[in-house]
Amino acid sequence: MSTPRMRLNGLRQNTVGHTAMGLWRHPDSRAHEYRTIRHWVETAQILERGGFDALFIADALGPLEVYQGSVAAALRDGIQTPTGNPLLVIPAMAAVTRRLGFAVTVSTTYEQPYALARTMTTLDHLTEGRIGWNVVTSALDSAARNLGLDRQIPHDERYLIADEFMDVTYKLWEGSWEDGAVVRDAEAGVFADPAKVHAIEHRGTYFSVPGIALSEPSVQRTPVIFQAGSSSSGSSFAGRHAEGVFVSTYKAEMACDLSRRFRAQAAAHGRDPQELKIFAIATVVTGATDEAAQDRLKDLQSYTSLEGSLARWSALLDIDLAGLDPDKPLRHAETEGIRGLVDVFTTMDPDREWTPRSLAQFVGVGGGGPVFVGSPARVADEMEQWMEIAEIDGFNLADPIAPAGHREFVDLVVPELRRRGRVWNEYEGETLREYFRGAGLTRVADTHPAAAHRR
Amino acid sequence: MSTPRMRLNGLRQNTVGHTAMGLWRHPDSRAHEYRTIRHWVETAQILERGGFDALFIADALGPLEVYQGSVAAALRDGIQTPTGNPLLVIPAMAAVTRRLGFAVTVSTTYEQPYALARTMTTLDHLTEGRIGWNVVTSALDSAARNLGLDRQIPHDERYLIADEFMDVTYKLWEGSWEDGAVVRDAEAGVFADPAKVHAIEHRGTYFSVPGIALSEPSVQRTPVIFQAGSSSSGSSFAGRHAEGVFVSTYKAEMACDLSRRFRAQAAAHGRDPQELKIFAIATVVTGATDEAAQDRLKDLQSYTSLEGSLARWSALLDIDLAGLDPDKPLRHAETEGIRGLVDVFTTMDPDREWTPRSLAQFVGVGGGGPVFVGSPARVADEMEQWMEIAEIDGFNLADPIAPAGHREFVDLVVPELRRRGRVWNEYEGETLREYFRGAGLTRVADTHPAAAHRR
Repeated sequence: MSTPRMRLNGLRQNTVGHTAMGLWRHPDSRAHEYRTIRHWVETAQILERGGFDALFIADALGPLEVYQGSVAAALRDGIQTPTGNPLLVIPAMAAVTRRLGFAVTVSTTYEQPYALARTMTTLDHLTEGRIGWNVVTSALDSAARNLGLDRQIPHDERYLIADEFMDVTYKLWEGSWEDGAVVRDAEAGVFADPAKVHAIEHRGTYFSVPGIALSEPSVQRTPVIFQAGSSSSGSSFAGRHAEGVFVSTYKAEMACDLSRRFRAQAAAHGRDPQELKIFAIATVVTGATDEAAQDRLKDLQSYTSLEGSLARWSALLDIDLAGLDPDKPLRHAETEGIRGLVDVFTTMDPDREWTPRSLAQFVGVGGGGPVFVGSPARVADEMEQWMEIAEIDGFNLADPIAPAGHREFVDLVVPELRRRGRVWNEYEGETLREYFRGAGLTRVADTHPAAAHRR
Repeated sequence: MSTPRMRLNGLRQNTVGHTAMGLWRHPDSRAHEYRTIRHWVETAQILERGGFDALFIADALGPLEVYQGSVAAALRDGIQTPTGNPLLVIPAMAAVTRRLGFAVTVSTTYEQPYALARTMTTLDHLTEGRIGWNVVTSALDSAARNLGLDRQIPHDERYLIADEFMDVTYKLWEGSWEDGAVVRDAEAGVFADPAKVHAIEHRGTYFSVPGIALSEPSVQRTPVIFQAGSSSSGSSFAGRHAEGVFVSTYKAEMACDLSRRFRAQAAAHGRDPQELKIFAIATVVTGATDEAAQDRLKDLQSYTSLEGSLARWSALLDIDLAGLDPDKPLRHAETEGIRGLVDVFTTMDPDREWTPRSLAQFVGVGGGGPVFVGSPARVADEMEQWMEIAEIDGFNLADPIAPAGHREFVDLVVPELRRRGRVWNEYEGETLREYFRGAGLTRVADTHPAAAHRR
């Protein structure tokens, strides 16, 4: 059996502070330049040089405001706020790259499927088939309040809406314009043959879309579908729709549990479990030697922000952590959610007594997943091992000091991974779906629900 | 008094056939490449070379389907369908230009102001202050039906919604983040100062937006506001909000009536009427000599599409013109709307008996406005004269054979206009608003309603 490829995506958000809290203060960080084309162009060129499948762009349509009941802490550390529209940085990156894919987060709760189908097709045209869509349903109350909802739609109903939303977009992408509908026959005066363009006549519970798709089909038609929710509704949704799944956990064994659950869900929906490519969030801190890397880690840790971490966890747990004593062991916390969080870390390092301060320093560099620290060989070893235990296909690599972290990884670790046959020297295929399914396979698999709408 | 500048915008839609019907069949047309980055990059570079203020991008979220009650004719000539999202071509063009502005059409009927404010700010950041927003309220029933509305919202109510929509976005752009809110003080650990970022607390008839703006302010803050509706509600809306107005008429005298009406509306809203820059749609067909240009016009006319023109007018008039005899004089038409259309052309050429076929050939090249035909000197003469009679500030130049039409204009006519001091050799300023208001003036005028929300 040949060595399985280690699939790599860059992980960013169109904001200052995403997975790392306070690291914008590090002298090497250019994260504050997220507003510029230059920043994204450089990022994309680094990742393509490193043979990454895609840049994965997270998004949130509301600020974090659970901590102290205010956006103040999020603003002080630039965590998710200020932020920009993630779709708009893609065309600039596409203009300077030829192979790198882009997986972008868009919520089904605040869009109309008719318009979003056009948006995704436009991106797939402009990138010539390099687009993925990370489907989210948006959990933030702060988004709901500002986007026309009196209150948040309940979690499970958001997934029902999302499910119908997907069906509408599949009909538009796969079932409206036949292959060959665009004939561009100047002599006959026919640009598109109306007999090959079909109204989808969708009338459902949440959406009514009678018409034809506005856009002619792109190379991939349906973008590569990503999903990240690991709730019960979320993993069922992923099992049905996702081609890429994004998991966030600190331990490989827990990632393995998630991975198996997602693959079982895919099988339950009549799909090959290996059609789901599973990526775990991770951060790499490297250097010429293990010692240099450890020094670099200490350097990065010295910029982590306790308040920023508390603000982020408060939003994740939906519990205001402002009252915690930063130096009091967390295992005594009165709130169940907090003790649950601590249990995870305790299993990783049973001898350590976690306090808010020590935890902030630990996860402040790589919030959401493991931090691999060491020489290129050590990092490669640990990544290989983690991938094997977790039964995953690769990593979504965060960058605490964007884009320097990605640059160091590509310059130092990728050559080592290439020596081991883990990262390709040349992209095989030209579209994101081919990276997932194999060269020549630009369309969804026959077992994917989008395929049911093909003509 | 110095010669007033002739302001030029390119006019396109992210589609195959926009103002010209059937011209996609011309061998010089690359309009079908609207799906590619290359096409837009080339277009932008041509316009910037010609000193254009901006590329104006029209949009429609539904297909034309009044003619024969079907989308068939629109599909056959690629008129507005297929189409792509106009926002997404801008970052690719911004990456290869430094000065050209971009005025993009987005409807207030199908967006949430909270999200759109972020989108526009993102574009203004990425372009470093070169964004304009053409505000439309979307008249197409085909869009309403597919985008979650049971029926079209009545025209005047759409403008009431648009008015409140504008106020919400102004509050987000001008009133939420103070100048200097982003301090990026690494030592103090403060990226943004929460004391300088304010919740807008908007609670109105159509929108409730209590929160802070998601994005830090861009160079222009509020994008340059364009408007195109010339109904009573539309011109009042323009008088209040617009900095650029787009008029579509075949005769300079009629454009003058519109221009005066818009400026009067601006004055009625307490603004300097000259703060409104008025652009008329026009098409130029040129060549080395008048004779060469006339030959070029005949060449272009031979590709016009009768059915395409009927499909477009049917949508504009909301009357199915399918039953008309193509060779029967239109002045005998039984429908008032059709006779009204013909009256316009009859005043231009009283001796001509217009039939659907002759009209299609006439307006098929430059639908919506005058077609200036001739040597560079003749075209420059006629444009100057039209501009003077119409009391306008410049033109939105359509391109029937994109991008060759714009290239010919820039290569042949712009040098002549530069000799006459009508087109600048160097952009004065770096942002779109400076081109409108003068170098150094990157923000809205004090009399603009957005300014009321400044802190």
